[in-house]
Amino acid sequence: MPGLFITFEGGEGAGKSTQVRHLEAHLREGGYDVVRTREPGGTPGAEALREFLLFGGHDLSLRAEIMSHFAARCDHVDRLIRPALARGQVVICDRFVDSTLAYQGYGLGKGDPRILDLIRTLGTQVGVVPDMTFVLTLPRAQALVRLAARGQSSDRYEAADEAFHARVADGFDAIARADPGRCLSVAADRPADAVARDIAVRVDACLAAHPGPA
Amino acid sequence: MPGLFITFEGGEGAGKSTQVRHLEAHLREGGYDVVRTREPGGTPGAEALREFLLFGGHDLSLRAEIMSHFAARCDHVDRLIRPALARGQVVICDRFVDSTLAYQGYGLGKGDPRILDLIRTLGTQVGVVPDMTFVLTLPRAQALVRLAARGQSSDRYEAADEAFHARVADGFDAIARADPGRCLSVAADRPADAVARDIAVRVDACLAAHPGPA
Repeated sequence: MPGLFITFEGGEGAGKSTQVRHLEAHLREGGYDVVRTREPGGTPGAEALREFLLFGGHDLSLRAEIMSHFAARCDHVDRLIRPALARGQVVICDRFVDSTLAYQGYGLGKGDPRILDLIRTLGTQVGVVPDMTFVLTLPRAQALVRLAARGQSSDRYEAADEAFHARVADGFDAIARADPGRCLSVAADRPADAVARDIAVRVDACLAAHPGPA
Repeated sequence: MPGLFITFEGGEGAGKSTQVRHLEAHLREGGYDVVRTREPGGTPGAEALREFLLFGGHDLSLRAEIMSHFAARCDHVDRLIRPALARGQVVICDRFVDSTLAYQGYGLGKGDPRILDLIRTLGTQVGVVPDMTFVLTLPRAQALVRLAARGQSSDRYEAADEAFHARVADGFDAIARADPGRCLSVAADRPADAVARDIAVRVDACLAAHPGPA
């Protein structure tokens, strides 16, 4: 019995991790066998590549950075996501191919069609497509307030300039509009519980039309 | 004026580094502006990925390993090979896409058509194809004698089993046969000077039919 693959996308501070945990708890209560994971990372090899990419201080060309993200993603898919789906589990993943499109394609690549094409070609090679993708949207000013409240150290993306973050947000919008059957934009400028309820309703509807848990 | 891109391929111990240096000296004597490089590596970012891949001890899925090699390759192409060719230089590279096909595709992947297809798709994305490729062939028994004489520490490929190296050798043969316009197999079980002369003759003929040095 095939599993269900759900991804969360959106800029930093939009509350993806919180919503992933809410959905995980909701599905476990419903008796589903859930695997929660994230990108970049999710497996030892992919986490090692995450460290290399986000914190290694290596200056890679944009195409090399993109390929490295897909290298981590292939390990994650081969070692964790695809086996879990084959076992009939529900996989909830914080970021997937759409984040590479938004950050590297629209953000760093400024929407260069050759870069977007490269990412889409690599995305096809990955061989796994989410059944549902929630794109959390939040005005940047509110995201900055949340990020400041967290007091976390910034990775390279959080420290980037505001024009970059605007391109990333526009990228996520474009991705959601281009694939409305898979993507649902969710306004995240509300209490987390309210956002979680909206998401749970959508996932429950999808599961009702989908083979039951393994 | 476009440059010329020459690659050397073959198993360990076949004498690629020696032949690369011979050809570099020959072309410099002829007044050509030569860039000598190698894979995996060739740029700081690609060298960092080389360390990660060959000596990092990370256990990646085969697809992830292949993508990582292409990540390093993209950095190498974007930062060194393509700019050098655009300046009209002759680029001599020790290993390129064919090595990924031979080692990861035929060796580790045992010729799995999905893995070979992945490598060929990524190879197309790289966007640079060698003008000439010399595939140095040497019986494995002789290669082992040379490697022992070098007394170098083995990387993960040199330490692999003999069936793996036989598949890699068969892979290089298949690559050379499939693309005779680009690839030339050169018997490397001869004195290095004799091999170098054969290669120089071929390169000189190619350059005579090619726009001159910048």
